Amino acid sequence: MDNQYTLGIDYGTLSVRTVLMNCTDGEIAAVSSMAYPHAVMDQVLPDGRTMLPANWALEYPDDYLEVLEHTVREVMDQSGIRPEDVIGLSIDFTSCTMVAADENKRALCSLEEFRSRPHAYAKLWKHHGAQDEADEINEVLTELGLIHQPRYGGAVSPELLLPKILEILHDDPQIYERASVFMEAGDWLTWNLTGKLKRSGNMAAYKAWWTPEEGYVPQQVLEALDGRLKDLIPCKLRGEICPAGGCIGTLTEEWAARLSLRSGIAVGAGIIDAHAGMPGSGIYRPGQLMLVLGTSSVELLLSDRPYADHGVMGNVRGAIMPGYYSLEAGLAAVGDMYGWFVDGLVPEAYAQRAREKGMNLHQYLSALAQELRPGASGLLALDWWNGNKTPYVNGDLSGVLMGLTLQTRPEEIYRALIEANAFGTRMIMEEFMKSGAVVDEVIVSGGIAQKNPFVLRVFTDVLNRPVRISASDQTAAVGSAMYAAAAAGVEAGGYATVADASRALARLKEEVYEPDPEHAQIYDDLYALYKEAVSVFDPKVKGILKSLKTMRK
Amino acid sequence: MDNQYTLGIDYGTLSVRTVLMNCTDGEIAAVSSMAYPHAVMDQVLPDGRTMLPANWALEYPDDYLEVLEHTVREVMDQSGIRPEDVIGLSIDFTSCTMVAADENKRALCSLEEFRSRPHAYAKLWKHHGAQDEADEINEVLTELGLIHQPRYGGAVSPELLLPKILEILHDDPQIYERASVFMEAGDWLTWNLTGKLKRSGNMAAYKAWWTPEEGYVPQQVLEALDGRLKDLIPCKLRGEICPAGGCIGTLTEEWAARLSLRSGIAVGAGIIDAHAGMPGSGIYRPGQLMLVLGTSSVELLLSDRPYADHGVMGNVRGAIMPGYYSLEAGLAAVGDMYGWFVDGLVPEAYAQRAREKGMNLHQYLSALAQELRPGASGLLALDWWNGNKTPYVNGDLSGVLMGLTLQTRPEEIYRALIEANAFGTRMIMEEFMKSGAVVDEVIVSGGIAQKNPFVLRVFTDVLNRPVRISASDQTAAVGSAMYAAAAAGVEAGGYATVADASRALARLKEEVYEPDPEHAQIYDDLYALYKEAVSVFDPKVKGILKSLKTMRK
Repeated sequence: MDNQYTLGIDYGTLSVRTVLMNCTDGEIAAVSSMAYPHAVMDQVLPDGRTMLPANWALEYPDDYLEVLEHTVREVMDQSGIRPEDVIGLSIDFTSCTMVAADENKRALCSLEEFRSRPHAYAKLWKHHGAQDEADEINEVLTELGLIHQPRYGGAVSPELLLPKILEILHDDPQIYERASVFMEAGDWLTWNLTGKLKRSGNMAAYKAWWTPEEGYVPQQVLEALDGRLKDLIPCKLRGEICPAGGCIGTLTEEWAARLSLRSGIAVGAGIIDAHAGMPGSGIYRPGQLMLVLGTSSVELLLSDRPYADHGVMGNVRGAIMPGYYSLEAGLAAVGDMYGWFVDGLVPEAYAQRAREKGMNLHQYLSALAQELRPGASGLLALDWWNGNKTPYVNGDLSGVLMGLTLQTRPEEIYRALIEANAFGTRMIMEEFMKSGAVVDEVIVSGGIAQKNPFVLRVFTDVLNRPVRISASDQTAAVGSAMYAAAAAGVEAGGYATVADASRALARLKEEVYEPDPEHAQIYDDLYALYKEAVSVFDPKVKGILKSLKTMRK
Repeated sequence: MDNQYTLGIDYGTLSVRTVLMNCTDGEIAAVSSMAYPHAVMDQVLPDGRTMLPANWALEYPDDYLEVLEHTVREVMDQSGIRPEDVIGLSIDFTSCTMVAADENKRALCSLEEFRSRPHAYAKLWKHHGAQDEADEINEVLTELGLIHQPRYGGAVSPELLLPKILEILHDDPQIYERASVFMEAGDWLTWNLTGKLKRSGNMAAYKAWWTPEEGYVPQQVLEALDGRLKDLIPCKLRGEICPAGGCIGTLTEEWAARLSLRSGIAVGAGIIDAHAGMPGSGIYRPGQLMLVLGTSSVELLLSDRPYADHGVMGNVRGAIMPGYYSLEAGLAAVGDMYGWFVDGLVPEAYAQRAREKGMNLHQYLSALAQELRPGASGLLALDWWNGNKTPYVNGDLSGVLMGLTLQTRPEEIYRALIEANAFGTRMIMEEFMKSGAVVDEVIVSGGIAQKNPFVLRVFTDVLNRPVRISASDQTAAVGSAMYAAAAAGVEAGGYATVADASRALARLKEEVYEPDPEHAQIYDDLYALYKEAVSVFDPKVKGILKSLKTMRK
């Protein structure tokens, strides 16, 4: 058999990235990316006159189809691979990014009558218009005694599926009525490509509180929220749930023509973008901690046991990889926080010296910071610049910097911020380990992993584990191509499971960061102080940070 | 009688400032200042080869005589006032700045044989070579069960008199032996000027644990420290103690000639420089809180009752003004902390905009910060950048900044630092009030009082008291001229007491800062959070900051 290929299509916040992967050796034959023509709409609709409230973030679903067509054609053209050698495709998408569609698969905002109706557009994952609805759901779940079930985790976020639907029902009930289905954008795409209205089990588990045993939220929750939600699940959330690594269906004739592919090839179930990075960065077995370091961070660990507490989600078996629970947590501010410091608090003299050396400020500060001995600055930070997810799941918390003196220098603060993220990651790792899971290796991906070796060195010493870096800087797209190979199956030239695909195809950089025992020892002490400081600012003990947030308003 | 004049001579860390004051109306007829020719020696002796350890700070006592002669002659020349119209002079000095002298009043470092012996030089107040000796004294006082007596206040500082003497005994016993007396530099000067070996009761009380009832430290403390200290008090600390506002003696013929003054005029007892600012800034009755805002701060309050606890010293009646106890406390970092921020953490874009507006960075940040509503930043700082004096008297504490977010801007941090100082001052004020003292007015002096109205506005709202500013920017020198007027007495054309002189002569600026009731209300809430945060970092409860300091080493 000739080499077989799959397409991995990674939908991010601003653009898509499509890769064509060789299923034999994992080589990437071609890559193409394209920004969404309408970008993120956070101020005004395309009509140029309908203004949006603060905290809104919408997209235009037809953009997703347009960039799909463009980038798939481009990788096929670039690579020269024949369509008959492409055996499947799979999509990952930001989530919950929700599309309201009619029975003909058309997003409601594409219908002339709804062009000026904000609720007819796709609500991007970070759309925060549904805070009131999230509060309402929290109240109902609390009244019903359900809020502490693992799937709700003590408090629900406005970014999830049900708050976004409820917001439409409250604010534009006509849109709610007219919508034949509410879907994750990833599911809306696979519906279009295959004609099968099925849903991603991965997205349903993490964003719609779905479990294989109990399905979506109990009917009594919906009815307590609003009587009109009575038929939500059987009607507007209809569609079989397809497990991660599964196949939604096959590519239709129409889309095969539009994409220059063969019809009948496998289309995998959509996956949340960060989760697709798991096989893409070579995580296929328990013991490997996945660490995505970007503007924020995601930590993922495969485990034989479920665990959901203190901001860790991991209660649905097979939600990312068949056979395993996937424990997920994250830090709310990583690269964002370093950027905040570099943009706002680095003095002119440093900026000048960095320019003289031909460095950007991150490089310059990292060069200075790596000369310092751990602990020597006497600084310690709590990295809650954007709230805390683990252990408190609390957006009212904020950052703390301790140990400042008249001698404190900018590079010391920069290092303290990085160390705080590493300590926060260690807390997550230890939280994962409470379930009995082990961590014997850390695999890092994301923008910072590629750009800042100093950050990796600090993480290595704090986590006291060997750290390796994904060779790819597009682990989500590569992971999607692996999901596509699993959807296609062995007979077609793919793999039996996504874990098999990852084991066979994922690439790591050769370099291994090994912990420095002396640094690790110092960091053990500093981490003990970090945990003590975390407990000091426990919102249930001392409400200082919550009170400060209240005073802001 | 013609107008009578007195001289106030203010010895600071780097220079002297001499004023000639009209005793009738308080007008300053002339001012002269001069830097010490040898400046502060912190690296090498004048021999150019004897290197000094870190933390040392020495001066050359003959410099004090030289600048005295120069500046007194200059104010006499400048003003054209006749010597017969000058009725007295008084000195204030940094303290404890200690001179070891022979029986002929010569500082030992001026003797050829001791030119290369560091311990023969004047030890400046901030000389920190005696930390080991301070530790040793703390141990002995603890063993003897004395450490919690008001005069020791729970822990002694290496800046005081006895640690400095003990350091000489330990490290250069020959100098100890050769010294006929150890004196405060201010006392050494009045000895020179009058021929009378007497000592300032003010300096003895605040820097040598002297009380009118019990004298210096008990003999058993000295003997427990070192048998060789047995005769320290009767011999090397000999000399009558002269109360604040008293007269040491009269100017000798020799010095009258050197200074172009009349012999026989009154020479007042020396006063600690910050304390001289008390009458100089118009503080002469209980209820007036004196606030000196410079690189650090000093708070002073006259009271009918003694109080000494939690970093407040105020156990000796008459130590600054006859008839009253003077409660003293301070913040260890004020202008130093603002300077640290401006020098190290303000970005290039701000520096450029400040230049365009023709402002320095303090002015630019203040202009931005004063537009903010109190509390709106959500920030709160503990102003311990240089340790904490009240309530913990603990140099191991360090600064804390809470409430940081990705939106936090430099001017918000700048304001939070200023607010933290104001909260720290309010804690001191409330600590003073625990003794039953009242505060009905705040009078501010020092460099920041003259330069930054925004800082004063924040203090006014936080303290919730009217704030007035001393009209003089040389309150210590003016205060010394008032002490000279009291030393001269009514018959000579002076005053009966220094309080009378201050009431009659001190000048305040016309402007009164009145608290904004709305801001004061918000600050009440924020201050409650500050106190909560202070208690969180109480070194006896959570040793986080102490541990961080330990890790620095």
